[in-house]
Amino acid sequence: MLPDFDQSLLGIDSTSAAALFHDAHTAYSFTDQPVSDAQLAAVVHLMRWAPTAINSGPLRVTYVRSPEAKARLLPLASEGNRPKITEAPATAILAADTDFHENIELLAPGAIGMKAGFDQSFDNRDGFARSNATIQVGYFILAVRAMGLAAGPMAGFSNTGVDEEFFLNTPLRSLVLVNIGYPSAEAFRERSARLSLDTIVDYL
Amino acid sequence: MLPDFDQSLLGIDSTSAAALFHDAHTAYSFTDQPVSDAQLAAVVHLMRWAPTAINSGPLRVTYVRSPEAKARLLPLASEGNRPKITEAPATAILAADTDFHENIELLAPGAIGMKAGFDQSFDNRDGFARSNATIQVGYFILAVRAMGLAAGPMAGFSNTGVDEEFFLNTPLRSLVLVNIGYPSAEAFRERSARLSLDTIVDYL
Repeated sequence: MLPDFDQSLLGIDSTSAAALFHDAHTAYSFTDQPVSDAQLAAVVHLMRWAPTAINSGPLRVTYVRSPEAKARLLPLASEGNRPKITEAPATAILAADTDFHENIELLAPGAIGMKAGFDQSFDNRDGFARSNATIQVGYFILAVRAMGLAAGPMAGFSNTGVDEEFFLNTPLRSLVLVNIGYPSAEAFRERSARLSLDTIVDYL
Repeated sequence: MLPDFDQSLLGIDSTSAAALFHDAHTAYSFTDQPVSDAQLAAVVHLMRWAPTAINSGPLRVTYVRSPEAKARLLPLASEGNRPKITEAPATAILAADTDFHENIELLAPGAIGMKAGFDQSFDNRDGFARSNATIQVGYFILAVRAMGLAAGPMAGFSNTGVDEEFFLNTPLRSLVLVNIGYPSAEAFRERSARLSLDTIVDYL
């Protein structure tokens, strides 16, 4: 697909930009080619360097791969999403760590003054963790693509169900599922429309 | 900086991956080299192709560049952020369009059945718009870097103040500010720590 801007403006190589942004598609089915621990780890290696507020980095990643773990996840996903989870070599549960503030001293010593406020209010840190981890969901999806893998993000699942099944008595709260693997021949749907630039952007 | 994984696993060129992820730094000051309309538009051209739930793409971008617009924004930012805004060639106000559901027919005709539910509940579409636009904040920041520009995301500002000043009587709700430009010699702070992979990832 041709992007609709002057490629010479890019700061990175145009094939890489295409692979991350305009040529990539959400994958709805996968081949049985496996994805290695090293590949899955590398996705997180990339993702964790991109910025978050006070370097909080609250995103946590649970890779569901074994048949046993898949069996726990499947009934919590919408029916339409179950075949994709079954097929994908890995499904990542992306979650926000609402106890991220325990790491402020390590990650952002200059912001240690904020810790007391977070200590006192679960709501404050829940909102902060969710916002920043959700920005990291964007980084994660592009990092999957940077590793040459296809991503299939899904919101159709029970958040409370996943939290009870996988994160009981932990501070983690699920946000999104992402199937990861190599796309099958019928993995991609026709490209959907996007809004025009005029609708998205304003210049003041 | 050396990433801590086998570079041969990458699906894109390693210089591009470094420019987006592990070699990029948040910029805290900028040179006076201008950023063109075409560059700012290209950031959005890239960003809008990355995935969102039901292809909703609710992120809206207001580039604040003129002295007049900067003067409206400055008092709404925390004191520490004002010099960065003054200096940056452009500051993007990233916002969620809580009336994104008006575009479902164009963007996701197969999901048109969801429109009625969104019509009936502002809270539902506010939550949905914020979640998906926040994922797009991640895409936007990496797209800025893909254009060879430095990004300086900031949460330190009055959301209600910005919404009243820039988005009065509109469905837009501000999420994050991002300074954009070319980094000055003193733009970057020392790299902060990141959590270990063991802390972030689990394999099931």
